[in-house]
Amino acid sequence: MKPSREDEAVPAGGPWEECFELAVQLALRAGQIIRKALSEEKHVSTKTSAADLVTETDHLVEDLIISELQKKFPSHRFIAEEAAAAGAKCVLTPSPTWIVDPIDGTCNFVHRFPTVAVSIGFAVNQELEFGVIYHCTEERLYTGRRGQGAFCNGQQLRVSGETDLSKALVLTEIGPKRDPATLKLFLSNMERLLHAKAHGVRVIGSSTLALCHLASGAADAYYQFGLHCWDLAAATVIIREAGGIVMDTSGGPFDLMSCRVVAAGTREMATLIAQALQTINYGRDDDK
Amino acid sequence: MKPSREDEAVPAGGPWEECFELAVQLALRAGQIIRKALSEEKHVSTKTSAADLVTETDHLVEDLIISELQKKFPSHRFIAEEAAAAGAKCVLTPSPTWIVDPIDGTCNFVHRFPTVAVSIGFAVNQELEFGVIYHCTEERLYTGRRGQGAFCNGQQLRVSGETDLSKALVLTEIGPKRDPATLKLFLSNMERLLHAKAHGVRVIGSSTLALCHLASGAADAYYQFGLHCWDLAAATVIIREAGGIVMDTSGGPFDLMSCRVVAAGTREMATLIAQALQTINYGRDDDK
Repeated sequence: MKPSREDEAVPAGGPWEECFELAVQLALRAGQIIRKALSEEKHVSTKTSAADLVTETDHLVEDLIISELQKKFPSHRFIAEEAAAAGAKCVLTPSPTWIVDPIDGTCNFVHRFPTVAVSIGFAVNQELEFGVIYHCTEERLYTGRRGQGAFCNGQQLRVSGETDLSKALVLTEIGPKRDPATLKLFLSNMERLLHAKAHGVRVIGSSTLALCHLASGAADAYYQFGLHCWDLAAATVIIREAGGIVMDTSGGPFDLMSCRVVAAGTREMATLIAQALQTINYGRDDDK
Repeated sequence: MKPSREDEAVPAGGPWEECFELAVQLALRAGQIIRKALSEEKHVSTKTSAADLVTETDHLVEDLIISELQKKFPSHRFIAEEAAAAGAKCVLTPSPTWIVDPIDGTCNFVHRFPTVAVSIGFAVNQELEFGVIYHCTEERLYTGRRGQGAFCNGQQLRVSGETDLSKALVLTEIGPKRDPATLKLFLSNMERLLHAKAHGVRVIGSSTLALCHLASGAADAYYQFGLHCWDLAAATVIIREAGGIVMDTSGGPFDLMSCRVVAAGTREMATLIAQALQTINYGRDDDK
């Protein structure tokens, strides 16, 4: 696909260099706003369930990021968490598309639990080109660009090479649905991994940062049902560029819109996790 | 009780000022060693189960801390994780006693998951006098001294005032036992809290750092079965000095040697958590 008018002056870093640079700037600016907001009282609303929270800061940060991107790249498309919650459709077309989570870990943010990130992914021709994730409180900037590696604050990231589930540290998240049947499945999946003697299971409250830990080799696998394309877009590029695997929980190819994922440092590990899991049905992002 | 010979020159900060200052110095030195070790290959052994790990660094750091404390305070007693694993008895007498965990979060450490702490507690007359916890990778030093408040890098800590479980962020850990019956109880306890509509449950892999998050108001409650006095000693002072409550999982008074705990920002919250829990029996530290 031919880049649109505003991308015609192609810089040295690749055709989407200007987009990437702006994503980094906006993630850092968003991080400043979030850090400031962490020290203030918050007005909290719920979305799909009592566990699905949103604050003024989610809206403020999303509006900032989208409006700045729109100014610079008026022909681009956008998929963003709070716009989707307000009814905007999540459809990934071949057009250059920004996929934005203004605050991943909103429940953490509400409680001032310091595991909170901004996530900005970018896709062209339905292929993820780069991802930028900023861990606001620890001031860690994770980036990945297709074919150019993944980095955290300038240091190259590399996944773990672990293939043995009994030596694995596994990350997951509870997900927004809290009805008894969904909780049973969530806990049953955790039980299966612990029975398989995984070293440990961690739940940190931010999918994107869990995936960044995976990319940096600090964990061996991640799985979740009930996350969204804005949790996955940026992280997927970072994990792939760090040498990792992202697949569907069925063991098949990864689908950004499927609301479920297994990721690991190795294909063997990802396959073992996928085989252990029972499916929790959350529908699809592009079917809502 | 009269302080022993080496403590007779009482400094301005209280009778145990010199002990506290050395604890801070040693925690920072230990943190440097742990940060360096995080970048190197590790030789890992297991203790009570496949999930109960120990490394050369645990031993190195414990030996450093204990030998430096013994040099300065030869009459003091010590309870420390790796010495206990090697068969030393854990008995808290009225003598000045140091209670040390050289690396809390050893499983995280092995995986380079950056949630790892040094914990040094100090008790006299079986009463906890101060606690020092150093989050090595984030360089956060948490301290609490009886009657003198709790701090993180100089900033005073204050627990959350939340009393409503349906608005709570709750922290827990899986514990070292991984037999099917213990796992069932662990998961059943998590299910009870999620049914009670807790905002979220987090499992970060370090009891002491979870308790520090609680002390800083970033979470509302913590519970665990299967932790030890060296996980609890320093953190208990920090939580109390931040205004929080530490109690037994039965709802009765806290017992440092009981291998179980509920802690919260408010007595109401701690009581709600205690009422929700089923007991997992891990015995006592002073009965092993």
